[in-house]
Amino acid sequence: MKVSELGEFGLIELLAKIVGKSKGESVLIGIGDDAACWRTEASLQLATSDTLIQDVHFTLSTITWRALGWKALAVNLSDIAAMGGLPQYALVSLGLPEDTEVESVAELYEGMKELACLFDVAIVGGDVVGAPVVVLGLAVVGVSQNILTRSAATPGDRIAVTGCLGASAAGLAMLRKGLKFDEKTTATLREAHLKPHPRVVEGQTLARHGVKAAIDLSDGLVSDLDKLCKASGVGARLFTSQVPVPPVVRKSFGDDSINLALTGGEDYELLFTAQGEIIDKVREAMPCPVTVIGEIVDEPGGEEPGRVKIFDEQGNEVKLDKEGWEHFAHLKGDSGQVY
Amino acid sequence: MKVSELGEFGLIELLAKIVGKSKGESVLIGIGDDAACWRTEASLQLATSDTLIQDVHFTLSTITWRALGWKALAVNLSDIAAMGGLPQYALVSLGLPEDTEVESVAELYEGMKELACLFDVAIVGGDVVGAPVVVLGLAVVGVSQNILTRSAATPGDRIAVTGCLGASAAGLAMLRKGLKFDEKTTATLREAHLKPHPRVVEGQTLARHGVKAAIDLSDGLVSDLDKLCKASGVGARLFTSQVPVPPVVRKSFGDDSINLALTGGEDYELLFTAQGEIIDKVREAMPCPVTVIGEIVDEPGGEEPGRVKIFDEQGNEVKLDKEGWEHFAHLKGDSGQVY
Repeated sequence: MKVSELGEFGLIELLAKIVGKSKGESVLIGIGDDAACWRTEASLQLATSDTLIQDVHFTLSTITWRALGWKALAVNLSDIAAMGGLPQYALVSLGLPEDTEVESVAELYEGMKELACLFDVAIVGGDVVGAPVVVLGLAVVGVSQNILTRSAATPGDRIAVTGCLGASAAGLAMLRKGLKFDEKTTATLREAHLKPHPRVVEGQTLARHGVKAAIDLSDGLVSDLDKLCKASGVGARLFTSQVPVPPVVRKSFGDDSINLALTGGEDYELLFTAQGEIIDKVREAMPCPVTVIGEIVDEPGGEEPGRVKIFDEQGNEVKLDKEGWEHFAHLKGDSGQVY
Repeated sequence: MKVSELGEFGLIELLAKIVGKSKGESVLIGIGDDAACWRTEASLQLATSDTLIQDVHFTLSTITWRALGWKALAVNLSDIAAMGGLPQYALVSLGLPEDTEVESVAELYEGMKELACLFDVAIVGGDVVGAPVVVLGLAVVGVSQNILTRSAATPGDRIAVTGCLGASAAGLAMLRKGLKFDEKTTATLREAHLKPHPRVVEGQTLARHGVKAAIDLSDGLVSDLDKLCKASGVGARLFTSQVPVPPVVRKSFGDDSINLALTGGEDYELLFTAQGEIIDKVREAMPCPVTVIGEIVDEPGGEEPGRVKIFDEQGNEVKLDKEGWEHFAHLKGDSGQVY
C-alpha cells in the first residue's frame, strides 16, 4: 500500500504502534499529540518536531526568507503552547540547495531569532546539509507543570477557541490567486498567514485554570477538532454561527469566509474544551478573545467520519466536502498548504 | 555569496553568530558542538538534531529501509555519545514521496526501534509530511552529569580513538563501486557502513574518568580532529602508523586503507584527548580498544588549514588533498557520503 492511500494520520497511527510504549512510566505522551511529554526529576519535559519542505509547505514566491524563519519556529512553538508548556530551546536542521544565497539563510535565521527573542527561546543547535530543495527541520523542547492533551475532552464540555479563525487561509488565497484588496486588508491578511503568533501565554493560562484538553489549529478547525474527538473517544457539535471570523475576512471573502474558518487551517489558535464555569474563568484571565463554538457529546458511533457534526444558523446539519487537508492527499491537488 | 562558496562550516559559524547567546547561564553549549547542552534544576540536558536527505546522504539502491532507520538514529545517538551523555528520547520527522510503500516506512521504523531498544531510547514523537524525496529529520534528547566538548583539548594531551577506522568508508566504496570480496568481508564491510554502533557507553565512560574533550568521527578523522582543534584553539600531530585500521580493510583495500581511515568518515567512533595517565585509566575501563594516534600541540598559527599535521612511519609530514568532505562541496563531485 502507498502512503498516499493510507494517509498521514493512518501512517502516524501505524508508526506509533511499531514504536510502542517504552521507558515505562516516564513517558506521559508519546506519538500522536501536539508534543511529546516525559517526566524528569524536576519537571515535565515537552518536545516537538516539524519539517517544512519547499514547494510542499511553502513556496519562496509568496514568503520571504525572514517570514519563513518566523513561521517555521512559530509552528513548533504553537505545538508546545497546545500542551500548556513553556518553550525553551530550539534545534534547527537546515537542508539547502548549493546555490542558496548566504544572505537568504541569514534572513531566515533573523526571522527565527526575532520570534525566539519574543518568547525567550534559545536556538541551541542544528546542522546544515545539502539538499535538492530547502528543508527546515525544527525541534523545540520545553517544560510544563500541567499539560493539555488531545485525549482529555469529556462529554458535556464546551468547545472554545482563542482569537479568530480564517485570516491565515484568506491570506493564503490572496497570495496564491493574486487577489487585490485595499492596503490595510492586504497587510492584515498577509501578516496573518506569514507571521502567526503562537498562543504560548494563552496555553499556559489554560493549563493553570484547570483546562485539560487542547489542540492547536494547524490543519483546519474541523480536521483538528476531529483529531481531538478521536483521541478522546467523543463526538462534537459545532455551530457555524458562533465561529469567530474576523471582519476583514468577512468583508473580503463574503460567503466563503466561513469555509476558510472551518477548513483553512494555519491560524495557530488554540482549541480547547472544558466545563462552562472553567471557560468563564479562563475568559477573564486570557489576554485574547475566547469564543465558545460548540460542545463535546458522546461518541456517535457508526462510520467515520462523523465525530464532528456541524450545524448552521438555522440548526440544520451541514456537510463539508473538504475537512482540512492531509499532507499526502494535498500533493495531488492544488488545495495544499503553500505559504 | 552562495552557500556552496561559504561552505557548511562557515555557514554554521555565521548562523551561530546571528543566534548569539541567550537564556543567560543555562545554555552551556549552543551551536557548534556535537549536541547542545543546557542546565535544568536536576541535570544537564543534551539535544541534537540531524536531517538525512535521499540522494544526498543515502541512496535506496545501497541501503535497506531498515538499515536506514537504524543509521539515522545511530548518527544522532553518536552525537549524544560524543558529549558523554545518555540518550533518552527521540523525535522523528519524516518527509515521504506519496508513492512510498507503507511497508517501507514500517521497516524504517523497525530499524530505528531495534537500535532504540538497545539503548533504551524512547521514540516519542514526530510528524509525517509529503516530500519530493525521502527526508529523515531526527532530534534526540539526553542527559549527562559531566560533558565532553570539542573545545577542551589542551597542548600536551594525547589524542586517542575508540575502535578501528576505515571500515565504513571501505563498505561505502564496496557498495558504490560494486567491488567483490569474499562473503565474510562483504558482510563485515557492509555492516560497518550501514549499521554503525554509536559509542554511548564508551562516551559516558570517558566523561566519568575525567576526559573533557571529544568528538564523534562522522566526517572523517582528519576533518573532525581539525574541528576539535579549531574549537579548542590548538594544533595536532597525527601519526598514520598508529591509526588503527582493521585487518579486513587492509586486506581488501591495501594501500588505500589508510586514506579510508584518515578521510573516509562515518565510523562513528569517538576521538578524545586527555593526559596520558587518564587515557591509561580509560583504556582499562573501556569495553572496546583505545588507541593513541597523536598529540595536541600549541596552535601552529599561520594560514588555515594547518592545525592538523600528519606524519608517516618515517616521521615525514604528509599532505592530504581531501580532508573529509563538506556537505555542500560534495554535491559538486562524486566524493559524497552516499550510503
